[in-house]
Amino acid sequence: MRTLILDCTKKVGEKVEISGFVQTRRDHGKIVFLDVLDRTGLVQVVFSGPIPPPEFHPQDVVRITGKVNKRPEHLINKEIPTGEVEIEATAPSEILSKAAELPFDMGGKELDLQLPTLLDFRNLTLRHPTQKAIFKVQAALMEGFRKVAHNLDCTEVFVPTISASATEGGAELFKFKYYDSEAFLIQSPQLYKQMMVGVFERVFLTSHIYRAEPSVTTRHLAESIQLDFEIGFIESFEELLDSMEFAFSEMVKFAQDFCAEDLKLLGVTPSKVSSKIPRLTMREAQELILKRTGVDHRKEIDLMPEDEKEIATWALEEHDSDIVTITHFPTKKRAFYSKADPKDPEYSLSYDILYKGLEICSGAQRIDNYDEMIAKIKDRGMNPNDFYMYLQAYQFGLPPHGGFSFGLERTTMKLLNLVNIRQASLFPRDMERVDIRLSQK
Amino acid sequence: MRTLILDCTKKVGEKVEISGFVQTRRDHGKIVFLDVLDRTGLVQVVFSGPIPPPEFHPQDVVRITGKVNKRPEHLINKEIPTGEVEIEATAPSEILSKAAELPFDMGGKELDLQLPTLLDFRNLTLRHPTQKAIFKVQAALMEGFRKVAHNLDCTEVFVPTISASATEGGAELFKFKYYDSEAFLIQSPQLYKQMMVGVFERVFLTSHIYRAEPSVTTRHLAESIQLDFEIGFIESFEELLDSMEFAFSEMVKFAQDFCAEDLKLLGVTPSKVSSKIPRLTMREAQELILKRTGVDHRKEIDLMPEDEKEIATWALEEHDSDIVTITHFPTKKRAFYSKADPKDPEYSLSYDILYKGLEICSGAQRIDNYDEMIAKIKDRGMNPNDFYMYLQAYQFGLPPHGGFSFGLERTTMKLLNLVNIRQASLFPRDMERVDIRLSQK
Repeated sequence: MRTLILDCTKKVGEKVEISGFVQTRRDHGKIVFLDVLDRTGLVQVVFSGPIPPPEFHPQDVVRITGKVNKRPEHLINKEIPTGEVEIEATAPSEILSKAAELPFDMGGKELDLQLPTLLDFRNLTLRHPTQKAIFKVQAALMEGFRKVAHNLDCTEVFVPTISASATEGGAELFKFKYYDSEAFLIQSPQLYKQMMVGVFERVFLTSHIYRAEPSVTTRHLAESIQLDFEIGFIESFEELLDSMEFAFSEMVKFAQDFCAEDLKLLGVTPSKVSSKIPRLTMREAQELILKRTGVDHRKEIDLMPEDEKEIATWALEEHDSDIVTITHFPTKKRAFYSKADPKDPEYSLSYDILYKGLEICSGAQRIDNYDEMIAKIKDRGMNPNDFYMYLQAYQFGLPPHGGFSFGLERTTMKLLNLVNIRQASLFPRDMERVDIRLSQK
Repeated sequence: MRTLILDCTKKVGEKVEISGFVQTRRDHGKIVFLDVLDRTGLVQVVFSGPIPPPEFHPQDVVRITGKVNKRPEHLINKEIPTGEVEIEATAPSEILSKAAELPFDMGGKELDLQLPTLLDFRNLTLRHPTQKAIFKVQAALMEGFRKVAHNLDCTEVFVPTISASATEGGAELFKFKYYDSEAFLIQSPQLYKQMMVGVFERVFLTSHIYRAEPSVTTRHLAESIQLDFEIGFIESFEELLDSMEFAFSEMVKFAQDFCAEDLKLLGVTPSKVSSKIPRLTMREAQELILKRTGVDHRKEIDLMPEDEKEIATWALEEHDSDIVTITHFPTKKRAFYSKADPKDPEYSLSYDILYKGLEICSGAQRIDNYDEMIAKIKDRGMNPNDFYMYLQAYQFGLPPHGGFSFGLERTTMKLLNLVNIRQASLFPRDMERVDIRLSQK
């Protein structure tokens, strides 16, 4: 019966059977030390005396029987929860599965590899504790997202990724033959979540989204995961801002509390999440940039990447916050379903969250009137027939509503200060790679 | 400030503002009754005396100000939690969004429509309480699945739906141009979840899966949602069976406890989930069928649909169970990664769950040795090069493992005794429809 490695700390003096992956092997003459890792932690196993040192190599999957001993005081490893014990092998060990020779060292504290190698050997590199930590944080972000969603009384809905028309415009889409017709992979579940407001009032969902743009950046993937909220019967625009900031803050806080050990392992300082997230309209942000840097971007229709960085610096300096909300982007710059500000229709009731200087969350209050929506679609040069099902929701009455969405990989990337979004995806898809490099196919 | 309708029961005598969708309107001369529905429930609103009866029609989105009154004893509606109160309108009401005239009555207890109409007017039909109930149960199944996954100490992983090769064979796949290459939509996340056993030992995931078969059945969709587990370092085949039965039983029990009201609304009796799920090998099942019915299917390589129904009847009669596990299907009938039973290699360490006579869950212990896997792939006439990334996991050592998966729509369908899987999908994709009928495009 297997004992998990972390549980060995409670079994000093007892006999245990552990299983895991060999990390490192150190030969000291007649004594051999193995570091063995399972999902709960790492432990040192000592082979000496009558027990033959096994022919184990890194990544071999092994089963070891031994006695749990307390380590001598001066050999305690305070950096790991299992550092006070070691296992003294008491029977010959068993190899469950043999690993091929490793192309690089996996035993170090860090895994210092170039991105292509990191991805070429994904099955191996993901086994390194630092890489596992990234995806534990990602799983915790998802869990935090769901907790918030329940808190906001949202119902989970499941919407398709196959779409009949290239509705939202903008991004290039993957198109494919769908029986005798053609179909597209969605670039966003936006239209469906709005439709669901007519059914459940408040919904959340997770969806894969797809973009076929032939560009390679550090912030985009061809397939990524989006976390969405849509909230009906809102009383004001501010209610949406409050909900978004609550959702994002709580999600980040949950993940970094839950994964405190993983952050430590990765050398990441927890993000500063102030209880009151600073808010600026886009125009206020531009004024602030002029004042702080002398650069005049007030004629620009959107924030530039360097503006976003400056705003992040301001938020951190003045509000001790890694998160800042920007509102009221120009109406013509935002998606067609965004509602114009009735007080100043050139600007929309839209918002982004900048997280450490990167846009990580986006949303808006939506148009909620059928005639207005039809007019807007036509105004954008699109065809209402392509929106048949979406417009049906408007036809039968939609309450005032709005929503927002987060990119899961982007949030993971910024939370952990990763330099490339591919590091935050188990199996990133881009122009050059689907598991293996496409040029090698 | 909005009061949710259910909360009105706690505010008798108070003034409230409610918002929701008009369900029905009844004119009794000078008195007008409206039934208004929000996400928490239904309430009757009375317009009489000085307050003008509003020009409201079914599905209009409205805001109403009024006083909560206790209903006279003989008018209490005991079937709904809000049946003891009604709202007396005290101010003119507001229309937030006007609905078009309905193509059919939405005010009845049931929504008796043919499937094409149900789907053609999806935005409307989903608003009917019986339809909403289906998807509340679906959301609860998903929540139950995640609770079980945490219970089994599994880590959530996020894997792609774009694949570089048509790896698993069998089902026809959707193929598309992926930059300068081609790619496919996955028919299962199987290979990825096995790879993740080498990283996290125990994982769960939810994935969209795709099948391009040009057939229309009541049990298949072109896009559906699969819930997956994969568990490493298993000690025995029985551990997998125990885990699967625990997972499925708990998921169903959670959903039907959490959604007791929804089941009542749909007239569904909760499934019988015995604490010990009956188990049969496929050959035992065939013997049992011979004994019970005189029909000899012992030469068949798989259970026939009528066999599955007979086994379901047996499980209910003899074990008071709507769930039964069938094990040891012929090795050549199962996917290539399934492990043959060492004691009788013609049969595999595989299993299905039959739920009310339908296969709803499937899985197996997997091959865990690199050389054996290579041999099996070749033996099936497939090319190891197409499995480069998958085989890498084997190359660097995988523990003994196995897993199982559930179809979300299928489970919803059987739990609620729906006759067609399309009723268990918000926006079903099939040969004939992507939101709208493809023949109408």
